[in-house]
Amino acid sequence: MAPNFRSISRKFAERSKHRLLLSRKELGVLSESYIDEDDHRWARLRLFLFNVLEMGRADPLQFIFAAKCGLALAIVSLLIFFKEPFDFMSNYAIYSILTVIHISEFSIGASLSKGFSGALGTLSAGILALGIHQISVGAGKWQEIVIAISVFIAGSISCFLKLYPSMKLHDFGFRVFMLSFTIVLESGTSDFAQETISRSLLIAVGACVCFSVTICVYPIWAGEDLHKLVVKNFRGVASSLEGCVNNYLQQFGYERIPSKILIYQASDDPLYSGYRSAVESASEEDALMGFAVWEPPHGHYKMLNYPWSNYVKVSGALRHCAFMVMAMHGCILAEIQSPAELRHMFKNKIQNVGTEGAKILRELGNKVEKLEKLSPDIDLLEKVHEAAEELQMMIDQKSYHLVNAEKWAAGKRPKDFEDVDRLQELKEEEIDIEPNGIGSLYEANIKPPLPCKTLEGHITTLSNQPSMVHWGSSEDMLKQQTQWPSRLSFVGETILNMREVKTYESASALSLATFTSFLIEFVARLQNLVSAFEELSETAKFSEPVNILEAKEAVSVWTRLLKSIGIK
Amino acid sequence: MAPNFRSISRKFAERSKHRLLLSRKELGVLSESYIDEDDHRWARLRLFLFNVLEMGRADPLQFIFAAKCGLALAIVSLLIFFKEPFDFMSNYAIYSILTVIHISEFSIGASLSKGFSGALGTLSAGILALGIHQISVGAGKWQEIVIAISVFIAGSISCFLKLYPSMKLHDFGFRVFMLSFTIVLESGTSDFAQETISRSLLIAVGACVCFSVTICVYPIWAGEDLHKLVVKNFRGVASSLEGCVNNYLQQFGYERIPSKILIYQASDDPLYSGYRSAVESASEEDALMGFAVWEPPHGHYKMLNYPWSNYVKVSGALRHCAFMVMAMHGCILAEIQSPAELRHMFKNKIQNVGTEGAKILRELGNKVEKLEKLSPDIDLLEKVHEAAEELQMMIDQKSYHLVNAEKWAAGKRPKDFEDVDRLQELKEEEIDIEPNGIGSLYEANIKPPLPCKTLEGHITTLSNQPSMVHWGSSEDMLKQQTQWPSRLSFVGETILNMREVKTYESASALSLATFTSFLIEFVARLQNLVSAFEELSETAKFSEPVNILEAKEAVSVWTRLLKSIGIK
Repeated sequence: MAPNFRSISRKFAERSKHRLLLSRKELGVLSESYIDEDDHRWARLRLFLFNVLEMGRADPLQFIFAAKCGLALAIVSLLIFFKEPFDFMSNYAIYSILTVIHISEFSIGASLSKGFSGALGTLSAGILALGIHQISVGAGKWQEIVIAISVFIAGSISCFLKLYPSMKLHDFGFRVFMLSFTIVLESGTSDFAQETISRSLLIAVGACVCFSVTICVYPIWAGEDLHKLVVKNFRGVASSLEGCVNNYLQQFGYERIPSKILIYQASDDPLYSGYRSAVESASEEDALMGFAVWEPPHGHYKMLNYPWSNYVKVSGALRHCAFMVMAMHGCILAEIQSPAELRHMFKNKIQNVGTEGAKILRELGNKVEKLEKLSPDIDLLEKVHEAAEELQMMIDQKSYHLVNAEKWAAGKRPKDFEDVDRLQELKEEEIDIEPNGIGSLYEANIKPPLPCKTLEGHITTLSNQPSMVHWGSSEDMLKQQTQWPSRLSFVGETILNMREVKTYESASALSLATFTSFLIEFVARLQNLVSAFEELSETAKFSEPVNILEAKEAVSVWTRLLKSIGIK
Repeated sequence: MAPNFRSISRKFAERSKHRLLLSRKELGVLSESYIDEDDHRWARLRLFLFNVLEMGRADPLQFIFAAKCGLALAIVSLLIFFKEPFDFMSNYAIYSILTVIHISEFSIGASLSKGFSGALGTLSAGILALGIHQISVGAGKWQEIVIAISVFIAGSISCFLKLYPSMKLHDFGFRVFMLSFTIVLESGTSDFAQETISRSLLIAVGACVCFSVTICVYPIWAGEDLHKLVVKNFRGVASSLEGCVNNYLQQFGYERIPSKILIYQASDDPLYSGYRSAVESASEEDALMGFAVWEPPHGHYKMLNYPWSNYVKVSGALRHCAFMVMAMHGCILAEIQSPAELRHMFKNKIQNVGTEGAKILRELGNKVEKLEKLSPDIDLLEKVHEAAEELQMMIDQKSYHLVNAEKWAAGKRPKDFEDVDRLQELKEEEIDIEPNGIGSLYEANIKPPLPCKTLEGHITTLSNQPSMVHWGSSEDMLKQQTQWPSRLSFVGETILNMREVKTYESASALSLATFTSFLIEFVARLQNLVSAFEELSETAKFSEPVNILEAKEAVSVWTRLLKSIGIK
């Protein structure tokens, strides 16, 4: 019954089939290396090394972190050499090395939290093991069995607990607990105290070295990373929004939708990556927040209990807005596209809302970056609300363009079309009335079949306007609209089912309504974002904005004062 | 200029302010424990333990995994006891314990991949350290310096490499490399060989124990988990889709939008959690796929190089559909809602598409679960395409309900409303013509101010229908529509800006068009999903479907045959 719908979606599937997207750089490297087919592996290795270095160049902190890691390890190994006189110590060198390797994390917060959970794990394991050791000694020849059973129980419980979502952060602590518990119990009765002390000492040495290097040499703060990430998200969503609006208005169409977008994987498309990274950063933000709360007050964040969670909230509210941008991008990806004429008609208003929306996102991003409050006397959302309202009103006024107005422009309003035959009858009647068959929408609009005084007055106004809107006939539209590739297949078919064609026409016009709905919903969601920002700016005690206007006013007052004195 | 728009979005923000969502269970436990305010901590501990046990009860595999972990640890500790005669060994007991603790992972694939990268790390570190050891011996009194420098370089490089995204899976390997490298270099010249051998031996013992327990005792396969996850996602999206469609048609409105939804965090809302878990499972799927490729053929997956990546692709295509469900949910969350009458009008068609769509998702989910191909003679998407086409056609026919038809029903089509004054003039003229001021949309529709033959004929048809649509007057609508809470604030205002009210009216009607657009786009994306499934079913060699119809036919043929023989 519905061949066209199916052919559309099949085309859609074909259009988007598995395309390997390579970045320009990758392509460059690959094209160089593909000269010799045999060096395939060598090329891949080169590509890998190139990408790794590129990663480091993009974020030099990663080089610094790596060097810090190496430094801590080297210091510990030197310390162990100098301690070699204490012979028994070198047996346990592994403890300080293990500590350094596991506690060296990217940010200070991550190192501190890992160190804390490791220390807690070691301590509790030590105390518990000491108690069980006393019991096992009492068990005589069953000692090994008692120990094995207690290891089994402790291991099972800690393994189970670490599966609990909120405990996953403390995975390391649980592993250390298991290790320490087993080791202490295994170490047997001989020189129990001495062993425990020397192990603890080496662990402490490792932890000290690691913390000193992490904190003293070019400190990397998780809080700062979180702060930067939130700012980056604001900018990403802003440029995605602008990109979506511009591409939509410029009739940008994907020749082939990157398959990565279809299965929601990272892609190079800047429009897509902007909102995607904001949407995807949720888990990163949570992790960074988990680390940031461990960090002492520092830099711009000189406050105990700094409200890092509010940054995450702001980013969450931004994400809620980003979903609308995602939906707008969906309109660009969609198979059914609105005609160029309609887009042109609404262009200014849509552009306005997009620009104002992006401006607000950028402004908020800047405020977050500079840790500055909003000016209390300026309503940030005023302009975007005005723009959205204007767009909404225009949609309201021009709503007849958004539907298949042809039928009822002729004065008919078929109420019940469950009966398809009846529809066909009405159609035929309509064609009888309009001799040019399927008249263009525009023609139907300005040629009222029912003369009426007020309308006549209006027509003159309309005809003075030099054809702002050009609707071709339905068939012309099909031929012209290259941005709607799947429709081309219909043209070849000799028997065009006009009813279906019209259906797609109206769907096509409605698609603009959908796009604007998203834009307006996006604007509606901005209030939520602003509230989240205001809460953040209160709790984090952002600075008052430097009101340039006030300063200028003061200057002008003084100038006038000085002038008046001078004149006097 | 636009107070109403702002008041709407402010209300929206208030409505959704920070609400702590507790699950019913949590509330139950908390309410019990809040009887005594002092036991706050105790209550939290109880809540934690309750939740942990609940987690285990929900997925008993977690208990099993924990027990396996404990078992492996206990076996290793027993082995070390028995080996105590080899005195030197007990010094290195830590190696086998470390190995067990680090390699014990939830699934076999995860254990194997960790074991492999650990082994690779140890081996390469050992060989490298051996070489450098020879060099350092040659360096004489600078030996320590040479060692420290090489530790620094090796540590930095491996620390840097493990930051690379695709290397994050091998984090453990890099840590083991650093550990082994440093330990081997530190161990000094005395009995170099013996130490290395005994360490390797103990590591091998730990790995053997761990692998035997992981594989032999109730094996947990990552591939199976991935398989189940994909099936779960299908069902989640299907029930979210049904929920969205039903809630939308039943005028479900959130009294207060859970703040967790606004900042896209997990929430109890079944409608929300269905698609959210499908959207969020991307990283879990990637991780599971990374482990599954390590697993040998087993169970239903008896094939070398089983195409696990295709499961991820199918799930990605499903995610692309889930975004549309998310957008539909956005319509339910949105501030501007379509009137009940419109929803009622389109109810059957929308319901049809929703039901058929959900059916397909469930069917595909079942096929994936049973590892069964699609029947080649049945077009799975036929019904849903028909339903979507019908909906689309109905929208086309009834499109005049979706826009503010009032103005041009009166025969006017104002072309250019940039000039607001001119709009006002036209409005006043309009009010002059219609003495009842702001006539209802429905009235405007059936009371044509311009008599016309064909329309008259149609009106009789309409008036025979017992008022399927009830549009109140604009003001009535405001008072009646309690599902649109923010609008109530307007009613109190004495000066109602009618123009704005109308604007919202048309926005409200267009919101239905938006919802249906999503539904239709969802259907269009199904083809992509079906293709992904077909590719999976080919590559993974799913079984041919048991064609029940064929079987039935065969039975009936036989029965007839037997009967005819009996009659003869």
